[in-house]
Amino acid sequence: MDLLIKNARVLQRSQKGEYSVCKNDVYINNGKIAAVGACADLSEPKKIIEGEGKLAIPGLINCHTHAYMTCLRGIADDLPFTEWLFDRIMPNEDKLTNEDAYYSSLLGCYEMLSSGTTAFLEMHMFPGAVARAAKRAGIRGVISRGLAGTLNDEDGGGNRRINESLNEMEEFSGQQLLSFAFAPHAIYTTDTDYLKYVSDLARKRDIPLHVHLSESVTEFDDCVLKYGCTPVEYLEKTGVFENRVIAAHCANVTDNDIRILADRRVNVVLNIRSNMKLGNGIPPVGKMFDAGVRLCLGTDSAASNNSLNLFNELAAVSLIPKGTERSSVRITASQALDMATLNGAAALGLDSGEITAGKNADIVLLDLNRSAFIPDNDLVSALCYSANGSETDTVIVGGRIVMENGKHVDLDICAIAERIREINNKLKGN
Amino acid sequence: MDLLIKNARVLQRSQKGEYSVCKNDVYINNGKIAAVGACADLSEPKKIIEGEGKLAIPGLINCHTHAYMTCLRGIADDLPFTEWLFDRIMPNEDKLTNEDAYYSSLLGCYEMLSSGTTAFLEMHMFPGAVARAAKRAGIRGVISRGLAGTLNDEDGGGNRRINESLNEMEEFSGQQLLSFAFAPHAIYTTDTDYLKYVSDLARKRDIPLHVHLSESVTEFDDCVLKYGCTPVEYLEKTGVFENRVIAAHCANVTDNDIRILADRRVNVVLNIRSNMKLGNGIPPVGKMFDAGVRLCLGTDSAASNNSLNLFNELAAVSLIPKGTERSSVRITASQALDMATLNGAAALGLDSGEITAGKNADIVLLDLNRSAFIPDNDLVSALCYSANGSETDTVIVGGRIVMENGKHVDLDICAIAERIREINNKLKGN
Repeated sequence: MDLLIKNARVLQRSQKGEYSVCKNDVYINNGKIAAVGACADLSEPKKIIEGEGKLAIPGLINCHTHAYMTCLRGIADDLPFTEWLFDRIMPNEDKLTNEDAYYSSLLGCYEMLSSGTTAFLEMHMFPGAVARAAKRAGIRGVISRGLAGTLNDEDGGGNRRINESLNEMEEFSGQQLLSFAFAPHAIYTTDTDYLKYVSDLARKRDIPLHVHLSESVTEFDDCVLKYGCTPVEYLEKTGVFENRVIAAHCANVTDNDIRILADRRVNVVLNIRSNMKLGNGIPPVGKMFDAGVRLCLGTDSAASNNSLNLFNELAAVSLIPKGTERSSVRITASQALDMATLNGAAALGLDSGEITAGKNADIVLLDLNRSAFIPDNDLVSALCYSANGSETDTVIVGGRIVMENGKHVDLDICAIAERIREINNKLKGN
Repeated sequence: MDLLIKNARVLQRSQKGEYSVCKNDVYINNGKIAAVGACADLSEPKKIIEGEGKLAIPGLINCHTHAYMTCLRGIADDLPFTEWLFDRIMPNEDKLTNEDAYYSSLLGCYEMLSSGTTAFLEMHMFPGAVARAAKRAGIRGVISRGLAGTLNDEDGGGNRRINESLNEMEEFSGQQLLSFAFAPHAIYTTDTDYLKYVSDLARKRDIPLHVHLSESVTEFDDCVLKYGCTPVEYLEKTGVFENRVIAAHCANVTDNDIRILADRRVNVVLNIRSNMKLGNGIPPVGKMFDAGVRLCLGTDSAASNNSLNLFNELAAVSLIPKGTERSSVRITASQALDMATLNGAAALGLDSGEITAGKNADIVLLDLNRSAFIPDNDLVSALCYSANGSETDTVIVGGRIVMENGKHVDLDICAIAERIREINNKLKGN
């Protein structure tokens, strides 16, 4: 037995979807949860973690981010969307080297781990950088190279990006914590042939497909003008939804779009704080939930959100629909927690998201001696409405302890900060 | 000189309302900020705080809470409003003793301090309990006894509560960090004569008046039915707005209400997360802001929010109007920060909310080696969009250090938790 978490209060979910918290032991072996409670294997655990005073939860799953952009945090806030994107974000992205993107991703991975996230889905533009950072940080990553362009680009960009994606999958194949997705960036940065080509490629290789979808009103209106249908209808027509699709945003969708997303079992990643901050509105969470759309949560990047802390999104998804729909029972804490764990795992094809035998040992221990958890009347609601991720004490990914006592076992935040400072000095031309 | 904070990065605000952050020294003497930068008084500081790697901000000001209810956190979530209030909250409140309320308030004060809040406005129902707790925790408190009933109550409750309020003011008069307000609970728990009586009392004593106002649609509709006008119009008619009024919520207001609130210089306390969580909607922040209403921020209680961390409200007030109004420039980080500091100070009549000579030395040092502040491109936006209060390292209230290295100098959270556990066991009948 590799690891035993003793006497923690363990958050578990019944098959009916009810959460409960009981004091229990969690046995971990070969990267998996061997047992919760009694364990048949009586061999001495190599390491024991004292779980008294801790709440064990499945690590949260961030289904949409761009960790490589973490170094751009605060570079462009409170600005109109077009100025934000074209005058600030894109010119600065162009100045980043692959090594810059690696350190930026390392900060992002550190931030996610230290706020209780154990897996993420990344869409990037720097081959290898995020995969290397995830490996270094010890976080589970589903990595996708953002694919923009067409099959006939004059500069060959569209094909080059597909090749970079394929090469990255090759280079990091066999890495226990890494898997991959194909990521056509969006409908407005590709064309129909390109989408179909990438979609076929993904289907043949049985790899999920990640895409930005119906994020802004501009995207929606332009699509209607160009194709005579909504962005969701357009992807439906191109056959993209034949794949396992993870669609980020869907902040601007019609009732018919919602029906399609549910029917085609599209995994919709809500990025509520990012949508709000960039003025893209608030996604119709309640309507999508009622329609049976598979909802999961994402932070988007630190240049838009500006945080990779998924606890913020847990709070947003459970609080904001209550506000917009004037209903105190709309999106309960349990429903929100499902989105941040099980639904995220299903979307990314990970055997994680629950503390139960056989699942990946992706577990976070939270410190119960923090005021968010005092009193402990309802620890599920505390996770959504009171906690903010800073309660993270111990993080285990694939059975390996990566954070202990709130500190990463081998990453130094000050050293990372120094590299990020140098990158920002360069961006500012200092 | 009592205290010198050396080499911190200090958040300051120009008279034009622009925030800037510069490395500087802050001198503190007799509970006040003596100087920022060079200091004429060259006497040796009794204590020096190393501010390198820290951001000094004015302590946040929570303008509406019920700290005495902190022990009820998580006792009733995801429930319809009436079940929440009448079946869960009120019966449990009735079981609390004054001593229970003291420990509950102590937890609330601890939670506020440890998330960067240095002053709060409390509406309570346990005379002395919150004042004692605030004094013990070393936080600045404006204390108000919730006043419900009428002048002719059969059981004398309406008059008894006024007397309790007066006695509390008497008992704690002269306490440096404590001041008081009169707090008619709401229009639906009082009558016109009672409101006028308390209002006169407050005016004669030059004490502010705190009231719940236009929180729910039910309150709004009932008022229209009973008085033929909106809650805001009703308070206007009764003459209550002749006082310095601090009105919590205003989540359901008309355009005419907003005009009145602006004209009468009512201090409106936004409690956005509480309003959302209880299904009371989202206050029209943008409209009130444009009309020139004096906006400040509150958390409401841990039984509704469920957190007393004002950083959550900073994020909510800067993000949610961007979402509801689809505008990325709506309520900037600077505007939100004004609400949490200067506006709050003005509402409560405190000489706090800014780091500038002559103001109360209510200062919070945040740890810049936390990912929320890396990189440090824009520390004002980081306070709203990235930080969550857990970066709080040192808290100074009235020149006294009450938290250091993220720990309260003489309160032990585990001991408080133990008392809170006992209270909850009693509430549950264990």
